[in-house]
Amino acid sequence: MKFDLALYLVTDSTGLEEEDFLSRIEAACRGGITLLQLREKERSGGAYLHLARRVKKISDGYRIPLLIDDRVDIALAVDAAGVHIGQEDLPVAVARKLLGSNKIVGATAKTVEQALAAREQGADYLGVGAIYPTTTKVKTVLTRVETLADIVHEAQLPVTAIGGLNAENCDILAGSGFSGIAVVSAIMKASDPESAARILRNKVRVLLGE
Amino acid sequence: MKFDLALYLVTDSTGLEEEDFLSRIEAACRGGITLLQLREKERSGGAYLHLARRVKKISDGYRIPLLIDDRVDIALAVDAAGVHIGQEDLPVAVARKLLGSNKIVGATAKTVEQALAAREQGADYLGVGAIYPTTTKVKTVLTRVETLADIVHEAQLPVTAIGGLNAENCDILAGSGFSGIAVVSAIMKASDPESAARILRNKVRVLLGE
Repeated sequence: MKFDLALYLVTDSTGLEEEDFLSRIEAACRGGITLLQLREKERSGGAYLHLARRVKKISDGYRIPLLIDDRVDIALAVDAAGVHIGQEDLPVAVARKLLGSNKIVGATAKTVEQALAAREQGADYLGVGAIYPTTTKVKTVLTRVETLADIVHEAQLPVTAIGGLNAENCDILAGSGFSGIAVVSAIMKASDPESAARILRNKVRVLLGE
Repeated sequence: MKFDLALYLVTDSTGLEEEDFLSRIEAACRGGITLLQLREKERSGGAYLHLARRVKKISDGYRIPLLIDDRVDIALAVDAAGVHIGQEDLPVAVARKLLGSNKIVGATAKTVEQALAAREQGADYLGVGAIYPTTTKVKTVLTRVETLADIVHEAQLPVTAIGGLNAENCDILAGSGFSGIAVVSAIMKASDPESAARILRNKVRVLLGE
């Protein structure tokens, strides 16, 4: 399945009312995100599925592919475009086997070794970071942009940069070979998520030389 | 798939070293459990899969069907016999659709309404309880044996009783129409899990009139 990593919104519903959460996602879709990931670490299977169904109705309306974090069963149940696999989630090879070759399987990689392992197991893209400290994952380890560039070079897969990125600090990615940025707070916590998405998208276009 | 609810061990690895956890499960298999459920609410997908693979190696050796709690993707990945679905997990109908008709789908039901809904969605058996207060689920609501008997009568599905049951207190189930008991602590926390399983199995045989 084709996908565009330019501006990848990873969601976080923590502390948000469901309707507010959904309206922020819809605003981000209007603002030009190109890919969407539902990431819910605390929800039970039933509540995760409920939310995935509601989010997919929105993203389908904008033809934006929806990926589900970790839970391949929920991705299958809502016919999502694919899954994103973190280092503590189901292995990439297992997700690929369960989903088949027509779905997107993305993987988190912090090192060239992890990137090559993910590629070997069938990953379609890599999420690399955290580039900057992030409030979403407080204990995360930072990844240098030089490592990101090495991963792009070695793994030969499209790479999205993640971790504390916003319109003011993403210049650091210029020339790294990245294919786009993934954000949580920069859109989900913005006072105007649509405008925040639009500004980020334009910024990434410039950095990518589009 | 055929299964026998007589003595159903639901696992809880909380506070146990992995090797100790696995050796308790193997002891329970030797002692005569007839069905096994891996229930891990706190593990990440990767760690859950890792444990499921190790547990299945053991249960396969004793030809005891292994069910996975909630995570249909992990059940598919290890080719488990099926899943068990709680009220907060993926819906029974979703699990049935993802697993097909040859796998076991069990469901928790505390009322006749829940039992009929689970049956309608394709459940193969019902777990009914908690019959007694339990340390595994501290906030759980109790279900009376009369309700269990009503569920057996109305839903016409095999029913396992769960919740604080042990060899001393399971006489209460006599004549209810139950098909067996499900236990966590009575085996997992026993000083001799094999012997605990054997005693429970014999007790249930007597209660079932076998």
